Amino acid sequence: MTELGKDLHRLASFLRLQQLARTPHDLTVPGGLTPERLHRYRCDAAGISLLYATQRLDDTVLAALQDLADESGVVEQFLAMKRGAVMNRIGGYESENRQVLHTACRDLFHSPPLATEASHEATEELAKLRDFLLDLEEETLVNGRGEPFTDLVHIGIGGSDLGPRAIAMALDAYRLAERRVHFISNVDPDDAAAVLKGLDLSRTLVNVVSKSGSTLETLTNEELTRAAFARAGLDANRHFLAVTGKGSPMDNPERYLRSFYMFDYIGGRYSATSMVGAVMLGFILGYDPVIEILLGANDMDRATEKRDIRSNPALLLALLAIWNRNLLGHDTIAVLPYSQALLRFPAHLQQCEMESNGKSVTRTGEAVAYPTGPILWGEPGTNGQHAFYQLLHQGTTVVPVEFIGFRESQRQEDLLIKGTTSQDKLIANLLAQAQALAAGQESDNPNRRFAGNRPSSIILAQRLTPATMGALLALYENKIALEGFLWNINSFDQEGVQLGKTLAGRLLAHLAGRRRETGHDGAAADPLGWALLTAAGLDVRGR
Amino acid sequence: MTELGKDLHRLASFLRLQQLARTPHDLTVPGGLTPERLHRYRCDAAGISLLYATQRLDDTVLAALQDLADESGVVEQFLAMKRGAVMNRIGGYESENRQVLHTACRDLFHSPPLATEASHEATEELAKLRDFLLDLEEETLVNGRGEPFTDLVHIGIGGSDLGPRAIAMALDAYRLAERRVHFISNVDPDDAAAVLKGLDLSRTLVNVVSKSGSTLETLTNEELTRAAFARAGLDANRHFLAVTGKGSPMDNPERYLRSFYMFDYIGGRYSATSMVGAVMLGFILGYDPVIEILLGANDMDRATEKRDIRSNPALLLALLAIWNRNLLGHDTIAVLPYSQALLRFPAHLQQCEMESNGKSVTRTGEAVAYPTGPILWGEPGTNGQHAFYQLLHQGTTVVPVEFIGFRESQRQEDLLIKGTTSQDKLIANLLAQAQALAAGQESDNPNRRFAGNRPSSIILAQRLTPATMGALLALYENKIALEGFLWNINSFDQEGVQLGKTLAGRLLAHLAGRRRETGHDGAAADPLGWALLTAAGLDVRGR
Repeated sequence: MTELGKDLHRLASFLRLQQLARTPHDLTVPGGLTPERLHRYRCDAAGISLLYATQRLDDTVLAALQDLADESGVVEQFLAMKRGAVMNRIGGYESENRQVLHTACRDLFHSPPLATEASHEATEELAKLRDFLLDLEEETLVNGRGEPFTDLVHIGIGGSDLGPRAIAMALDAYRLAERRVHFISNVDPDDAAAVLKGLDLSRTLVNVVSKSGSTLETLTNEELTRAAFARAGLDANRHFLAVTGKGSPMDNPERYLRSFYMFDYIGGRYSATSMVGAVMLGFILGYDPVIEILLGANDMDRATEKRDIRSNPALLLALLAIWNRNLLGHDTIAVLPYSQALLRFPAHLQQCEMESNGKSVTRTGEAVAYPTGPILWGEPGTNGQHAFYQLLHQGTTVVPVEFIGFRESQRQEDLLIKGTTSQDKLIANLLAQAQALAAGQESDNPNRRFAGNRPSSIILAQRLTPATMGALLALYENKIALEGFLWNINSFDQEGVQLGKTLAGRLLAHLAGRRRETGHDGAAADPLGWALLTAAGLDVRGR
Repeated sequence: MTELGKDLHRLASFLRLQQLARTPHDLTVPGGLTPERLHRYRCDAAGISLLYATQRLDDTVLAALQDLADESGVVEQFLAMKRGAVMNRIGGYESENRQVLHTACRDLFHSPPLATEASHEATEELAKLRDFLLDLEEETLVNGRGEPFTDLVHIGIGGSDLGPRAIAMALDAYRLAERRVHFISNVDPDDAAAVLKGLDLSRTLVNVVSKSGSTLETLTNEELTRAAFARAGLDANRHFLAVTGKGSPMDNPERYLRSFYMFDYIGGRYSATSMVGAVMLGFILGYDPVIEILLGANDMDRATEKRDIRSNPALLLALLAIWNRNLLGHDTIAVLPYSQALLRFPAHLQQCEMESNGKSVTRTGEAVAYPTGPILWGEPGTNGQHAFYQLLHQGTTVVPVEFIGFRESQRQEDLLIKGTTSQDKLIANLLAQAQALAAGQESDNPNRRFAGNRPSSIILAQRLTPATMGALLALYENKIALEGFLWNINSFDQEGVQLGKTLAGRLLAHLAGRRRETGHDGAAADPLGWALLTAAGLDVRGR
């Protein structure tokens, strides 16, 4: 494994790229963006096409990016990860020291899998899921009145919420007619109250998802929900499911109808294809679509093992990200799906990218010498065109874009208006935006000038099916892991969330104190925290 | 009006701020963040408190920011705007040349209003709304079978969608029990199909919102929805409402049950308190809460007329934005509401900020010499803490934050767990995050180090009521307009959206061509557009 873990700015190919970045490809001049280029700068795998002619690079830069991939051994690191290397660590310091094996959840369809033990555990959980779904379908698992369950409340936060929720919304067109899902995530009590209001709890299952079995928000919302079941005269233990780590405080079959396991080698933000997503998705879609999601993801995982950047979309996206972030100097990236069903997919990717790669130390604990993970944000098109695209076209800050689109709609309910369907209008707008951002436009009126040279990629698939969703998810998961390898950071821990938790605990001790005793005063023990509470106008001194 | 329209970098106070920005206030050292500072750096108006002790500034910088406000005449410009000055223009070039009078929609409660004619028109529309809502309530306006209407589908996009939708979600706790609202915005046919599926159209009103009466997405979705009514054997003209400009193609009473007007002096992204938001909000909330929203907004509008930055939260927020964007060099800003009900409020603010201030020319058509509107993004806390906060704390890019929180929950359904309520946990987490970002933390383990000095503001109110929502909305609308005055740009046009529309039209002509004639070929007329379609794998050559 050549140059494993070498810092980006110490690689010869990176220095070469810095030279090349001084005169990036100009998309606005004659010949800058040509039909030939549009056809040639395209990379296909797992049913997904990546069009990148509207990026600011040429064959020379592409060759240097290939060198960067080779020199950093990034694909070898990805393979090592899939095989079970301890990639979640910081050398020389206390760290999580874990394998990173979310890919094992979908590496089940070939024999032998790359990580035998992990794939075996995933297979066992899938078998439990199939049995559970069969019991629901055959109505051997029913409520106290012998009626089938129609609704499922999914309680989780972060990785146990955003990915599963985004996929559930994305595949709502495939939902079983008699099944519905609802989500509670925020510790905000209004979140649970709004969801529970109007549900027939007697026909509702509750899926509680927490790897550690100790997530503050999730346990709090579980208790709020159990209290609602108790008020309705129902035995919560016969309605609640658990997805948790073996041996966690939640691993207690007496409190749950069924329990499913996740494992410490799967990080929360990479857990959508584990039981964290699969239990809820199986409930609303059925078992077979869950397998299709895994198959689609596995197809992309295998394509990610290729060394040629022109046939590995995840690797190419990662390298384009480095090009835009570290060579051209752009702080953010927008992911803009032209699909209302993907409304919450950017929020999931925001988590996956920013929690993975928002890091300042290398895998040996040194301060990084270059920018790492960008700010990832986005909303669906065409909606965004009527919102923030003004800044994309004419703002003072350049935002690289990843468009996502489909050649066909999901529901196939459409109307021909003025010679074109709504789906035609949708995809035409996506392509036109990439062209407009790249090519720009001159005008005598300075307010109607478009500078152009604003880079974008276009990610296309035939239709947003379960398999496509799996491939798209894996495309991004893998892109993000590959970026982390290139930046030589640990993309699999999240030490940055600890300090806020500690400080919140202190403030909560004050608030608990005021409920216990009149005249409670925390000013001496914690002057700053106490001042925060009083400055915020919270009534701190007892009730 | 002193220095009206002078460029930011030509102001003496800005040059002074550039000096001060070389050594910004250090929040991590002893005495950097004190109880005294937390109490003193607080600004109150219209029921909203702005805490800004966790920004990187001191009294000297505050004084210079006050000078900047005075020197640029920014409050005078705001007042001129409210009085009806033609603020939407670019001097010396063809431009929209319009007044900017969204504030007139809520300047109704004092006599005389600042813009008499516009407030008079707003009052007339409110009277029509009250009559309409009364007719619904008294069941003189019913469906063909004499039943009351229970559902309303709101069709709009951009300004006609994001603001109204965000407010409807924010105030769902106040919704009339028998009334529901649904939204269709995207030209994606799956958006309309998903919403219309499962609705009882016979008891559904459809509110079509487009100022121009010619918005592609909205008219397309109106036709899709009318077709669904026709299939259900219903007369759409007796179910559809219109909110549009006088004399627009949609201003046609024969096709609509009721019509409400908006005016060309109200920009889409500033239109939430006009009939664009009010018709739908009146349907789900009733008339009085709409008035409370307007009252709350008007309170903030009046506070925004104050010249003292310490008693004008909108002005202070605008100046803090300039400090972080133009002096400390941060490209983005995150708005993080600790309230699940505000889930979509950041998407509305993203539109309002980025479409208003994503500009590269001044109000006299010169290229701007400094960065303008930042990238605004955000998601609710505590959810975000389990998603992207890792990067906020330990990433290589600093993101200034605006936290939004409330002292009480909306629904008041809560549970005491381990001595505190969920609402306690929510607000404690908000405050702890501001403290953690500012103060940071040392550690022997470099991966557990927090650099600190990451700026934030805290926006607090007692409870998210209709009045609070109005004040919060106006706070941001006014902040954004004031920023634009400071940057000397036109925050009220959106020329940057035109090029994409034009290019999409060309691609749609190809797609219409292929439906008309087999073997249609557009390669000669538009080689680039044609290549985009074929490279994307769309079947372009006829059916």
